[in-house]
Amino acid sequence: MNTIVKNGKLLLTCEDHFETADQDLYIAGDRIAGIGAQPEDFTADETIDASGMLIIPGLINAHTHVYMTVLRGVADDVPFEKWLFEGVMPKEEAMSSEEAYQSARIGLMEMIKSGTTCFNDMQMFIGQACRAAVELGIRGVSGRGLAGDLSEPVPGGSRRINEAFQEMQDFGKEPLLTFALAPHAPYTCSEDLMRRVPQLAAEHGLRLHIHLSESRNEVENCIKEHGMTPIAWADHCGCFDVPAVAAHCVHVTEDDIRILAEKHVSVASNPASNMKLGNGFAPIPEMLSAGINVCLGTDGAASNNRLNMFHEMSLMALIHKGNKEDPVSVSAAETLRMATINGAKALGLDAGEIAPGKLADLVFLDLSEPSLMPFNENTDPASALVYGATGAEVDSVMVGGKMILQGRKFVNH
Amino acid sequence: MNTIVKNGKLLLTCEDHFETADQDLYIAGDRIAGIGAQPEDFTADETIDASGMLIIPGLINAHTHVYMTVLRGVADDVPFEKWLFEGVMPKEEAMSSEEAYQSARIGLMEMIKSGTTCFNDMQMFIGQACRAAVELGIRGVSGRGLAGDLSEPVPGGSRRINEAFQEMQDFGKEPLLTFALAPHAPYTCSEDLMRRVPQLAAEHGLRLHIHLSESRNEVENCIKEHGMTPIAWADHCGCFDVPAVAAHCVHVTEDDIRILAEKHVSVASNPASNMKLGNGFAPIPEMLSAGINVCLGTDGAASNNRLNMFHEMSLMALIHKGNKEDPVSVSAAETLRMATINGAKALGLDAGEIAPGKLADLVFLDLSEPSLMPFNENTDPASALVYGATGAEVDSVMVGGKMILQGRKFVNH
Repeated sequence: MNTIVKNGKLLLTCEDHFETADQDLYIAGDRIAGIGAQPEDFTADETIDASGMLIIPGLINAHTHVYMTVLRGVADDVPFEKWLFEGVMPKEEAMSSEEAYQSARIGLMEMIKSGTTCFNDMQMFIGQACRAAVELGIRGVSGRGLAGDLSEPVPGGSRRINEAFQEMQDFGKEPLLTFALAPHAPYTCSEDLMRRVPQLAAEHGLRLHIHLSESRNEVENCIKEHGMTPIAWADHCGCFDVPAVAAHCVHVTEDDIRILAEKHVSVASNPASNMKLGNGFAPIPEMLSAGINVCLGTDGAASNNRLNMFHEMSLMALIHKGNKEDPVSVSAAETLRMATINGAKALGLDAGEIAPGKLADLVFLDLSEPSLMPFNENTDPASALVYGATGAEVDSVMVGGKMILQGRKFVNH
Repeated sequence: MNTIVKNGKLLLTCEDHFETADQDLYIAGDRIAGIGAQPEDFTADETIDASGMLIIPGLINAHTHVYMTVLRGVADDVPFEKWLFEGVMPKEEAMSSEEAYQSARIGLMEMIKSGTTCFNDMQMFIGQACRAAVELGIRGVSGRGLAGDLSEPVPGGSRRINEAFQEMQDFGKEPLLTFALAPHAPYTCSEDLMRRVPQLAAEHGLRLHIHLSESRNEVENCIKEHGMTPIAWADHCGCFDVPAVAAHCVHVTEDDIRILAEKHVSVASNPASNMKLGNGFAPIPEMLSAGINVCLGTDGAASNNRLNMFHEMSLMALIHKGNKEDPVSVSAAETLRMATINGAKALGLDAGEIAPGKLADLVFLDLSEPSLMPFNENTDPASALVYGATGAEVDSVMVGGKMILQGRKFVNH
């Protein structure tokens, strides 16, 4: 289907800033075909009137666990061990597949309503987040969480690896879904698993998704056990020989930053989660200086508790200014890149910006909302989106050329 | 007018936590008359069906400058001096009274839509925020910003003091408005002004609203000039001999905290603004330990840039956990108290909780929004509001027993 989006204000991604343009947008199938001038041989099946709307590339949530949404609030304002062992784990173990699916539905609805068009999921219930994503029409990258070792019988890495490939088979034809291999973390994966997974990823052309250096404890224990930091250990095991997304990276050394930069690892930072669990602030300014592709994630609802990328953007742009007492640390434009084009790069998607050839994953924001006012020729759109918008301004959402939210109502069917 | 609110879920403020109760609410005139059981001699003029709604006390924004809303985004990601001298001040000087009114309207609409029912304003355009507040039906405390000294002619403290009292005369009969005297800060007020204002406040039964110890520079300069910190200086000048709200208090000493506690000064913390301008994190955990009445504000839109108390609550509950690497620092319940009952106490209002005799300032949140799910018998409502909600869940807002927002539309007339 071909669509013209008329009368909207488009957010355009430039080298180091963002601009807006009052131009029509031409969409052919699931991709952007042209901006301003109608492409040759383009016939529209549908016209969307986007008067009064700011149209932005859909936000990309680069690290989440969407099956955990029903665990929102099960253990807040408690020490980490109580959160994990008394709050999250017993509830997670008692969760059925059907509950995981319902949980994923709630979380994805929250994401869509707040302008997210793609999520990078590490999941523990195969097929359930995929099922919810297909129903709601959101784009996703699913990685079955891998832990343990390669021995049989269960619980072991082999069973989970088999499940990961089973999910790829079950949902492989879904146009909005891609897949990653997701070893949970060095502290939950044996060396043989840490070494085998990147080999499998390389064989199958898959990306890696892993938690690294989230807490001080984790780093200390890894150094005790392996004589190196989690990041150095993951590198040593070959995890960075394939394209990888490393979530958290809060407690990192200069050497860690050098490794992440040299191996082109994308870092998915989760500021809310890192604060809420008392882990602190990731050294994002230093990572940006080192040229690392930093992207942004919400983590799961048990440790955030929002799944709202506007909230996460505001945190990213504020907390480093507070922590460094430096009002120019981590700009709105850098932050908006993390939530769009950097996220797309991390996940290997032609998305994250409004440009010909890119996926038509778009969010329509209502410029009549007071929180976006004033919006005029002097407005820096990155600043308006990062410091002003909360997600409540999202009126409509398109994924792959198809509207999935219109006038704040879900319309995918 | 008497109103029954039926079928809603009420948020009740308990000693150190919050609970919910599925009970009807009885409102007589501008106050809550009863909960659960119908008060004697109560006849309803109107019944509101609040099925599927969580009803909370309206949030109280304890420090803002609502005329600055059109300055949102004029200078972001720049050093403080550039922000103030090249961004904010030239625009503020060029602003007309009519622009200040329009600006206040936008800001108050943003506040109302995100659940704020009362704002404590320090303003520079007399009558304009009051005019917008009366039109929209929000409760407010207006303090004309005072600066300079007591000499004539203008610009001087005397003119501004006269304007403050002129505004009280002009709007004194408005039931939703009260007034404060607002010396801007020690670094903009002469000693004679700093001493005269609390005397006037005592004579007229007014509260004080002042900025104190926002930046390291301010503190250093004050010590150089007066031999004491801004908080000690304000105390020395008598500012704390009347009920006072001190905004910011970021860079404070142990002695400062002792003074604030002993003199029962309410601290209005502004976490977004303090981060955005690179001032850092106020020592809120220490202030709470000292028994200080900490409340919460957005500051103006030039330095936040949101005027959304849900956003501010999330920051308050997250940043100290991050900064202290302590997941139990500043709980959701403590934060929600800051935004409700502590704010009411700071402003001398019978508000901030749902209880008989209190002002009927209420916010109705739509429990069908995914960001509030799940919400069941195990849910801690403070956690749901502080960590989950963004303000997008606000369906309706009542101030003084009168609906001013219904189904997300403004209805005051």
